Amino acid sequence: MKDEVIILDPKQWTVRPANEIVILDSEFARDLNCVGPLDARYRIKIKELMVYISERARIKWQAKMIVALAEELFHESKITKWSIVEEIRAAADATTAEEVYDEEDRIGHDIQALKNCIRAKVSDEAKVWVGWGATSYDLIDSSNMARCKAGIKEVIVPDLKKLMAALIEIAWNEYDTPQMGRTHLMHALPTTFGFEIAQIVNRLGGCIQKLEGLTEELEGKFSGAVGTSSWYQLVIEDPFAFEQNILARVGLPAPLISTQIVGPEPWIRVLQEIINIAGVLGNLARNMRNLQRTEINECREGFGKKQVGSSTMVQKRNPLTWEQIEGIWKLLIGRLVTPLLNSISDLDRDLTNSISSRPDPEMLGYLLLTVKSATRALGKLEIDRPQMLANLKITGDLVGGEPLQLTLAFLGHPDAHEVVRQKAMQIQEARGTSKKTTLWELINIDRKLIPYVNRMTAEQKLVIQDPVKYIGIAPKRAKFVCQYWIEELGLPNPVAAIQA
Amino acid sequence: MKDEVIILDPKQWTVRPANEIVILDSEFARDLNCVGPLDARYRIKIKELMVYISERARIKWQAKMIVALAEELFHESKITKWSIVEEIRAAADATTAEEVYDEEDRIGHDIQALKNCIRAKVSDEAKVWVGWGATSYDLIDSSNMARCKAGIKEVIVPDLKKLMAALIEIAWNEYDTPQMGRTHLMHALPTTFGFEIAQIVNRLGGCIQKLEGLTEELEGKFSGAVGTSSWYQLVIEDPFAFEQNILARVGLPAPLISTQIVGPEPWIRVLQEIINIAGVLGNLARNMRNLQRTEINECREGFGKKQVGSSTMVQKRNPLTWEQIEGIWKLLIGRLVTPLLNSISDLDRDLTNSISSRPDPEMLGYLLLTVKSATRALGKLEIDRPQMLANLKITGDLVGGEPLQLTLAFLGHPDAHEVVRQKAMQIQEARGTSKKTTLWELINIDRKLIPYVNRMTAEQKLVIQDPVKYIGIAPKRAKFVCQYWIEELGLPNPVAAIQA
Amino acid sequence: MKDEVIILDPKQWTVRPANEIVILDSEFARDLNCVGPLDARYRIKIKELMVYISERARIKWQAKMIVALAEELFHESKITKWSIVEEIRAAADATTAEEVYDEEDRIGHDIQALKNCIRAKVSDEAKVWVGWGATSYDLIDSSNMARCKAGIKEVIVPDLKKLMAALIEIAWNEYDTPQMGRTHLMHALPTTFGFEIAQIVNRLGGCIQKLEGLTEELEGKFSGAVGTSSWYQLVIEDPFAFEQNILARVGLPAPLISTQIVGPEPWIRVLQEIINIAGVLGNLARNMRNLQRTEINECREGFGKKQVGSSTMVQKRNPLTWEQIEGIWKLLIGRLVTPLLNSISDLDRDLTNSISSRPDPEMLGYLLLTVKSATRALGKLEIDRPQMLANLKITGDLVGGEPLQLTLAFLGHPDAHEVVRQKAMQIQEARGTSKKTTLWELINIDRKLIPYVNRMTAEQKLVIQDPVKYIGIAPKRAKFVCQYWIEELGLPNPVAAIQA
Amino acid sequence: MKDEVIILDPKQWTVRPANEIVILDSEFARDLNCVGPLDARYRIKIKELMVYISERARIKWQAKMIVALAEELFHESKITKWSIVEEIRAAADATTAEEVYDEEDRIGHDIQALKNCIRAKVSDEAKVWVGWGATSYDLIDSSNMARCKAGIKEVIVPDLKKLMAALIEIAWNEYDTPQMGRTHLMHALPTTFGFEIAQIVNRLGGCIQKLEGLTEELEGKFSGAVGTSSWYQLVIEDPFAFEQNILARVGLPAPLISTQIVGPEPWIRVLQEIINIAGVLGNLARNMRNLQRTEINECREGFGKKQVGSSTMVQKRNPLTWEQIEGIWKLLIGRLVTPLLNSISDLDRDLTNSISSRPDPEMLGYLLLTVKSATRALGKLEIDRPQMLANLKITGDLVGGEPLQLTLAFLGHPDAHEVVRQKAMQIQEARGTSKKTTLWELINIDRKLIPYVNRMTAEQKLVIQDPVKYIGIAPKRAKFVCQYWIEELGLPNPVAAIQA
Repeated sequence: MKDEVIILDPKQWTVRPANEIVILDSEFARDLNCVGPLDARYRIKIKELMVYISERARIKWQAKMIVALAEELFHESKITKWSIVEEIRAAADATTAEEVYDEEDRIGHDIQALKNCIRAKVSDEAKVWVGWGATSYDLIDSSNMARCKAGIKEVIVPDLKKLMAALIEIAWNEYDTPQMGRTHLMHALPTTFGFEIAQIVNRLGGCIQKLEGLTEELEGKFSGAVGTSSWYQLVIEDPFAFEQNILARVGLPAPLISTQIVGPEPWIRVLQEIINIAGVLGNLARNMRNLQRTEINECREGFGKKQVGSSTMVQKRNPLTWEQIEGIWKLLIGRLVTPLLNSISDLDRDLTNSISSRPDPEMLGYLLLTVKSATRALGKLEIDRPQMLANLKITGDLVGGEPLQLTLAFLGHPDAHEVVRQKAMQIQEARGTSKKTTLWELINIDRKLIPYVNRMTAEQKLVIQDPVKYIGIAPKRAKFVCQYWIEELGLPNPVAAIQA
Repeated sequence: MKDEVIILDPKQWTVRPANEIVILDSEFARDLNCVGPLDARYRIKIKELMVYISERARIKWQAKMIVALAEELFHESKITKWSIVEEIRAAADATTAEEVYDEEDRIGHDIQALKNCIRAKVSDEAKVWVGWGATSYDLIDSSNMARCKAGIKEVIVPDLKKLMAALIEIAWNEYDTPQMGRTHLMHALPTTFGFEIAQIVNRLGGCIQKLEGLTEELEGKFSGAVGTSSWYQLVIEDPFAFEQNILARVGLPAPLISTQIVGPEPWIRVLQEIINIAGVLGNLARNMRNLQRTEINECREGFGKKQVGSSTMVQKRNPLTWEQIEGIWKLLIGRLVTPLLNSISDLDRDLTNSISSRPDPEMLGYLLLTVKSATRALGKLEIDRPQMLANLKITGDLVGGEPLQLTLAFLGHPDAHEVVRQKAMQIQEARGTSKKTTLWELINIDRKLIPYVNRMTAEQKLVIQDPVKYIGIAPKRAKFVCQYWIEELGLPNPVAAIQA
Repeated sequence: MKDEVIILDPKQWTVRPANEIVILDSEFARDLNCVGPLDARYRIKIKELMVYISERARIKWQAKMIVALAEELFHESKITKWSIVEEIRAAADATTAEEVYDEEDRIGHDIQALKNCIRAKVSDEAKVWVGWGATSYDLIDSSNMARCKAGIKEVIVPDLKKLMAALIEIAWNEYDTPQMGRTHLMHALPTTFGFEIAQIVNRLGGCIQKLEGLTEELEGKFSGAVGTSSWYQLVIEDPFAFEQNILARVGLPAPLISTQIVGPEPWIRVLQEIINIAGVLGNLARNMRNLQRTEINECREGFGKKQVGSSTMVQKRNPLTWEQIEGIWKLLIGRLVTPLLNSISDLDRDLTNSISSRPDPEMLGYLLLTVKSATRALGKLEIDRPQMLANLKITGDLVGGEPLQLTLAFLGHPDAHEVVRQKAMQIQEARGTSKKTTLWELINIDRKLIPYVNRMTAEQKLVIQDPVKYIGIAPKRAKFVCQYWIEELGLPNPVAAIQA
Repeated sequence: MKDEVIILDPKQWTVRPANEIVILDSEFARDLNCVGPLDARYRIKIKELMVYISERARIKWQAKMIVALAEELFHESKITKWSIVEEIRAAADATTAEEVYDEEDRIGHDIQALKNCIRAKVSDEAKVWVGWGATSYDLIDSSNMARCKAGIKEVIVPDLKKLMAALIEIAWNEYDTPQMGRTHLMHALPTTFGFEIAQIVNRLGGCIQKLEGLTEELEGKFSGAVGTSSWYQLVIEDPFAFEQNILARVGLPAPLISTQIVGPEPWIRVLQEIINIAGVLGNLARNMRNLQRTEINECREGFGKKQVGSSTMVQKRNPLTWEQIEGIWKLLIGRLVTPLLNSISDLDRDLTNSISSRPDPEMLGYLLLTVKSATRALGKLEIDRPQMLANLKITGDLVGGEPLQLTLAFLGHPDAHEVVRQKAMQIQEARGTSKKTTLWELINIDRKLIPYVNRMTAEQKLVIQDPVKYIGIAPKRAKFVCQYWIEELGLPNPVAAIQA
């Protein structure tokens, strides 16, 4: 594989339009020496996120903070020559993660190692300004929040919107496709397939909106070892404005206050919303898997011509992608507990949260994986409308039990629910015997009920006999939901696409 | 204990200004037959929340939904006489939770039991309108969300604001009280006690704002067995408007779409924010407990004159309340996993989430308990300013190591960090020996450093020698945070109180 | 409801054959003022466990420890008159939980309150021996472990064995009932229903064995405030033997060492195994729910004649009990996180684990509830053998794809898997069209395959054509598993019952 | 770094004494392209475990299963020439993980890809025997359990025993070093430092024993697609014995029964015990961190001469390793939730557990990391005995309050606890004032108490006045615990080492 150069998004930078931090394609290649499946197996599928979440990116973004500091020191007239900023930038860009790790091996401190590596590449005049006055967590917390924010905004949210568009297209196309609604896994009342998908559209739409909002609330900090800006207060006129300006250079707001570290809640909320998204997709997957059951068979995951379903059972076509999506939900739920434990840090901070927060970016990776998997699975979804209709008819007009008992009650029957319940049990017991019958038949041979039947309207009679008529406002509401979220999130309009 | 009558908050009701649902004081008495500590031990402390979260309240609020439905059916001209609505309301109010449970024992269905109990108390004409066309979860989900929303708004948020006021009062009073800042549990740089408390003020303020916003997003649903409004669509002109109106009567918005049940995310988000609040208070508690350690002794939990600290060790005065608060955080974290598992429900719904969501209101109870405990503990907090100062001085002028090395570097020293680090180690090794010395002494006898010392300003020299001077903008930022949240949440102004 | 007297199991007592601690039936009545569903709704179903897990029981068992201490002090000749032990026992028995709570309200310390209540009822001579030298957690930890151990041994394990017997009866009866095996929710290879149930038998059997073993490892402690037996060492010859003897009186071993509290691992392991049991039952429930799907319909939960399935949909018969069982699994998983957090206690102990461990006995309650629910659901399980067979045949002889390709390969075909895979796809595409065919037909018209077919044995041909023949050793292994666990756990033999 | 060859442990193999699966040193090098910290940052520290837990190892061990199958087919006289087994073994050894991944990319099935890669390297005659009749999970589940078992037994348990030896050495050396015992973080009663460490010895010892036992219970399976051995039953005389023999070749027992996959409980129990170990080490770490607090300062983590404590605060020496250990505990707790969710698999299995169980081996990696960190931290632990004594004396003879009140009560004082409690409060209020006094002084000027004092023995008086005398059986019990675990686990005896 030839290495290509990818440029980190320059929009993060306020002073200069571009930076030279580059990531090589080799970063995305599998490393089968890894233990973690994200790194060993899946990272090739989420490669555009790696410039934000890999260990290499972690260090690169820390270096970015050192450059942002230098820029702001120039702005504050502490650094008096722009060439010094340029020197620091060049040295930061030239510093590799490997170098930093080697230096850390030597001195046992990660951020001091980074500073040393950059200092070694600049003039004596510039050396003092490399990380001048910054405590480690000014760089660590800020760069972590900056890269995660950028990764969510630049990669994850756009992919979530593609998934939304794929869902909306199905919901719109199938808005009036009749399907049996199921509660307790059992036939309940009819619905439409588009209406069912619109549920997911609506839940996911809400999550995307929340995720976008919460991402904007992520904060950095640049206020020294215990948050008091003690050193900067000696040398900078307004340390709070100074902090705000540095953080703005990497796209972050400053907190009202912080200790050595930023308050954990904004980041925890982002992770919580990630779990919520995984849950919505997990529910979609659970539904799809069940609709693909051999006996139900209403949907199928499309299958490659050469794909092997089972190493022995040649006939198998399994809902593999949906299984993966539900699996990621299980994987992510467990991961949330640790960030919750990170919400406590003793006084101005203890370091017990260091290693326990290092895997957090993995959660972004798994999220993107499940989003991409869901989009792919929807793209090759086979919908079997005849089978949906055939299944709907299994329960026959028993479905009409609800409108029947409600109509009887409406027409004055004193005990409609109980009467219909008994007839329903009679039908269920008669199944598979020669006494097989329908609800409508039983009603029409019951002398006590005939007076009520006679008073029913034609529409009522129709709905009671034909379950497909009893789908209520499902089609209307499915379309409404699609339109709402198209507007709300600025998505492409599938109506136009369909009409064209 | 004499039973007193408490009226459920009438603001929930849009049509009539009051309702007669009453809760007896005996509800709050301990029941030592219970297994759960909230019910057995703590409910007396959170009694104002019980009308929202007890099992009795659960059923009462379900009955409320039946009344709201009747009201709306009158509004829709289905019910043509207001007296029928009155009948249903009276019957709903007269129905006890015990009755409903007894009926459920008989027929095995909780909502049908409720309907039966109410029907038994109304005229034949009114019977049909009791829960007319509503599926169980129209009543269950909507009433659960309505009562939890009301409980949060009416009880929990007001108590959270009282806690904020208590925190702000301390932060404001102690804004410039010097205290050693500690990272890794070790002395780091000086800070102020008010600045430390302001951290909690800021984190908690953010959580309260989020909780209020998320509570407003809780939704009910009134759209039938699979969310299609199938029956209502036959008999009501605009079933969506109908749903909105019913829900408005209990203070809830309608969702854009739902299955048999409301989408789980709005409620999960409320619970997630509850965990976040517990985490902030857990962090406050962790800090306070450590500041109370015998060897640190900077804060103490006030103690009743008759209170026994230990059954054998007579001298003990323990940070009991703070321990409880941190304990509740541990208790609540575990509880969050279950609601996350409730985010999946098969197709239009399976019932596996029924029992697993029943304990959710316990989380509200534990939250209120921890909020009240924290407010109480702050009210009797003893702050030992002399001890704070004494502890601050343990580390002596080693704290000045940071401004010293930064100043040296600023003045052009090529290797300031390393030089000062070595002197700091020298001091630490000399401790307890006759060679005990200070950083300032060592600097002033080092010929290579004297030229730099000579170039220092008076202020620089002062800060390096006296750690209390090195508190940066801590006082300013502590006050700023207090003022920000006083305005943001409309809290009482402690400044006025203090000045008066 | 008339109160009946239940005597606590006397087997716990080594010195005297009985004790007078009694629990009234009213303990089991519902208390609808509760928030927790276990107390409000379910405790009537697990009433035999309440004497171990209720708050009342908690205090009663603490009083037991005080009596055990007095007995041992008599044994050690510290107390010189047996009448003093009798006095203390009588006072302990006469002390109500309510009294203790009232005293705690006054003095703010629970164990001192208990001691005061007992002391108030004995002679001056006896007063000093009430809890003599015991620190609170000598009584609290030991009594908690003693009551939970007793509850598990006396109630939960026996009920688990009844559940095993119910499972074994089904597995044994249905050991050769053909059923389609399903992987990925899709038809895979045939199995038998008894073989499927035997999976649960085997997993649950392993859990019961583990639970029994782990329960025996629960420890108390009686070694004073920091575990050093400091006081007893001054006055008792062998404080370690003293500790062992006291604990033996309540059925517990002593630890090799402890701080103020017992090491948490033995109890955590019991809770972990409880989760494992809930998981096995959750898996059984998941399976049963899916087998009851309308389209699959191989099993049904029996239904009361008067039972209402849905408040509107009269035809519904839902897998309610299985849903509850899977729900309890979700509920319990979350609860495990908190005990894990209790594994850390600062130095000789901090109290943050007090409130967070108080709900632990609820886990025993929910476990018993799910065990009883599962036993009940199995008792009324309807197994539809014809439907199992009918479903099995849906996939036709495609199931034979595995033996076919393996046989072809065995007979020397170089690419058997690929050849059969293509034919399987051909059949699936032809479904529902006029080209509908079978695998056996396709094989027999493929000239390249006919030579292989000709070399097949009659048995091979039979198995390839008839999936019901391809159940392997399922029947044999199902019976083997049943017999293994009947012997291992000493269960009643269903074979005898069946043969009789 | 020069690549060295490491041979996989041959003890796993029963038929031939060695195998040629090799792992290169480059596997252990950092890969900074990784997201997961275990792979990016820490794997170099746990390199001996990588041959069991890396993705490469995963595939290598799957290939091992194919060889084990071939060996057993030879044993069963299905394969009639040993050279075929040799061919398959050679092909399996020659197959790289990269090849398998490339083939999976092509055909979309991992195990079929592995088979294809091996088949491509053997003669036509041998091809059919490569994975003959095995379903994917016969290979996957068995190889996963085999490699995790081997990794635990060969690497983790030996390292745990080294950690035990390090702990025992400290507990033994410090068995009578006086230290203040602390409950609620406050001074309680004296103890010894060795006694405190012996707590950890005892808890960890129990965990190691459990882990060893549970590891032996891990099972594989080799029974086909739904566990019925359908194919093997056609061609092998005793499929159950056949399964047992294959699994024995990789060191595993066979289950009594399985579906497509092995029952999850044995593996879950191993992971649960891993969490328990992390908890014990987390508690050790919590204790050590607090003992290192600046104000307590009884222990210190040794520090490299060149190590940088803080990038700005030059004086800092932080408890970094202990912080990491407590952090790993937080990290691991969250990870346990996912395996618990894996306890349910629909019917004969769904694949949702595939991705969610892939990270399980990471837990082994983090465990080993924390074990090694703890051993290292103990090796450089600085124990400050004078400081322990100085701290002990802070509370003065207030510690004697317990023996005082118990002695008074023993001597017949009717209200000893209350009298002493009041004196203790008097002393605490007098602190820092000119009225500073001791408990012994106050007792001796109280006329009502003097008669009791006069009746005290010399030993009682001594203990009451000198807290260091009040350490009970701490020294004895600390040594006892050491000796117990040395014998139980067969550890080196530190006594011998010390005496020599």
